[in-house]
Amino acid sequence: MERLLSTRARTTTSSTIRDLLKLLEQPDVLSLAGGLPAAETFPVARMREAAQRVLGEAGTYGSAALQYGPTEGVAALREWVAAVLPNAMPEQALITTGSQQGLDLVFHALVDPGDAVVVEAPSYVGALQALEATSPELVMIPMDGDGLRVDVLAAQLRAGLRPKCLYTVPNFQNPTGATLSYERRVELAALADRYGFLVVEDDPYGVLRFRGSRVPLMRTMTEHAVTLGTVSKLLAPGLRVGWVVGPEWLFGSLVKLKQARDLHTSSLSQHVAADVLSDETFMSGHLARLPGVYRTRADALYTSMTEAFGERLQMVAPDGGMFLWGRFDGLDTNAWLQRAVRERVAFVPGTSFHRGEGRGRDEARFSFATLTPAQLAEAVGRLRAAA
Amino acid sequence: MERLLSTRARTTTSSTIRDLLKLLEQPDVLSLAGGLPAAETFPVARMREAAQRVLGEAGTYGSAALQYGPTEGVAALREWVAAVLPNAMPEQALITTGSQQGLDLVFHALVDPGDAVVVEAPSYVGALQALEATSPELVMIPMDGDGLRVDVLAAQLRAGLRPKCLYTVPNFQNPTGATLSYERRVELAALADRYGFLVVEDDPYGVLRFRGSRVPLMRTMTEHAVTLGTVSKLLAPGLRVGWVVGPEWLFGSLVKLKQARDLHTSSLSQHVAADVLSDETFMSGHLARLPGVYRTRADALYTSMTEAFGERLQMVAPDGGMFLWGRFDGLDTNAWLQRAVRERVAFVPGTSFHRGEGRGRDEARFSFATLTPAQLAEAVGRLRAAA
Repeated sequence: MERLLSTRARTTTSSTIRDLLKLLEQPDVLSLAGGLPAAETFPVARMREAAQRVLGEAGTYGSAALQYGPTEGVAALREWVAAVLPNAMPEQALITTGSQQGLDLVFHALVDPGDAVVVEAPSYVGALQALEATSPELVMIPMDGDGLRVDVLAAQLRAGLRPKCLYTVPNFQNPTGATLSYERRVELAALADRYGFLVVEDDPYGVLRFRGSRVPLMRTMTEHAVTLGTVSKLLAPGLRVGWVVGPEWLFGSLVKLKQARDLHTSSLSQHVAADVLSDETFMSGHLARLPGVYRTRADALYTSMTEAFGERLQMVAPDGGMFLWGRFDGLDTNAWLQRAVRERVAFVPGTSFHRGEGRGRDEARFSFATLTPAQLAEAVGRLRAAA
Repeated sequence: MERLLSTRARTTTSSTIRDLLKLLEQPDVLSLAGGLPAAETFPVARMREAAQRVLGEAGTYGSAALQYGPTEGVAALREWVAAVLPNAMPEQALITTGSQQGLDLVFHALVDPGDAVVVEAPSYVGALQALEATSPELVMIPMDGDGLRVDVLAAQLRAGLRPKCLYTVPNFQNPTGATLSYERRVELAALADRYGFLVVEDDPYGVLRFRGSRVPLMRTMTEHAVTLGTVSKLLAPGLRVGWVVGPEWLFGSLVKLKQARDLHTSSLSQHVAADVLSDETFMSGHLARLPGVYRTRADALYTSMTEAFGERLQMVAPDGGMFLWGRFDGLDTNAWLQRAVRERVAFVPGTSFHRGEGRGRDEARFSFATLTPAQLAEAVGRLRAAA
């Protein structure tokens, strides 16, 4: 009966993230693969209190956390989003089922089959999956330590490239950890204005800065920008609560697409998130503690990796986020992963984040977010044994 | 900048459900439109207890209700689904963000542009929206008091129709309230086997039977069936937890599509639902009480409507579900709705559930689920004033 499957279903790319999430189920694997936020940072007690509050009005019509709600999202949450993002009004904020859904909606609202879309090389796997469902012409632009090579993009635009949109993770990119520099953001904004494409800036990691100073979002530099965010790293990913804040002409289309996708995001998740996020006293303490957990882990993993692999490894010390990216002289990271899994340790080979045969073959992504410093040191020992 | 929108975004049909959900926001409107389950039936206290339990393991890696989880869904919930559905294994059950997402995934996994898809006339608006995103050739088959006219379908199949799938709400259909008879289910199953199409049976309302006896699901009659369900009417819709149980050849495609859509459904919602549903003592009491609330309301609305509109109205007394469907001799229900809204009462005109100019013009759907019997009587008074 497989003949009943649509072309789309038959051609959907294989599910790297899915396989990664499955590693969760094996507790003896030390996984640097999955990108799971540190569970120790989840504000469990405060969220339990929030759940009590939003489920408090038994049996009345006021139990909004249990009833159908508007597709756009819960008003209190949209107001919070507008308050924390620059140049944003609540009416522009669409609450999504995680920022993964935001990507799905934005790409489907913009991209027709064959449209050119610019992405960073390497790029977030989930974004590539959502984007590829729209059958675009992918244009991959290389990165360096300051993020996307905007000069390379500018040359391609001068040569005639006319993309619908450009996808970037501007802060602590997944997978490289690189942050797009201020100068390049200004240049990229000018290119978006000049050539009329939309910058899709996906910012799950900006909140996890533990060194250096914040760089303004591109939405402050151009009206050709749509910004995605999430509570996944801020509170907890299991809520599946994210948002998209874009220009007015895009909003209605996003809402209509979302309505056909899932009507609206979990009311319970939204109300719990809104209750915690709106508690300014709690959040200022939480945000003061959060990046420190990641700094300790980032430094532990970076030190262990550079000591273990020496000159063979090119790796940049991170200022935030969840990932380290490495290039390993003469090492095929896919073959390495096979051996690593036997040693009960996991990471993501570079080829997963690229498109095109052989690209990223000597590269790999390592998450420092999930494990404790002691576990990270043990994981690097296993990695070295497998290399 | 609207030129950046995709063809898909520009052609998405206008959002009837969205507009309906917005009526929520006006408390003085007596809405028979929205299809909101009776909030009084939500097991708020038991769900609050569940939230406490699943958020109980502070700061440990065990806080599964807050961490990323597998795309397929939480194991305990998949096991519950397999236990309550006939011929189902946990490995076949995909947990979705409401059954709306199940529809989105199933249609995208099956339908290529131009593929023939059979739907009931009239049909659930949200299913039509999800389906139309795949650009099918819609084939609408009329209904009567025993559900889909399977004889009409059989004639079209003999004449050469070869659909990919057929969408049906077999129990207490939305919008007509009709239940597909046992004999027709057997016939339809035989047609699915013979002509090789998949029956997509969407069963949110089967649990709300308050008279007569249950008719077996089509999945017991053919392997050409995929079954969708939801906790929306069983516990509460705000959780956005549903499921799809289909044949093995379909499962992998659904999971891959879902992964690109939203990674997975809210872990918090899933764990709360699993905790309540797995409590057999609680659920047997809940299920014993639940249909009675709807019976009282259905009878109240049916009696008021038939008294108020007399011979002008054709309407069938319901055995379950949430909706009454009426045909009004010589009344344009769209024009009626305009006047009704001024009287602070709302319903859904029949044309919303049809495709093709003018179809369903003298018909309308009335939900008896949301309001109390006294409010229902008041609503009918306003409807009569507006007619």
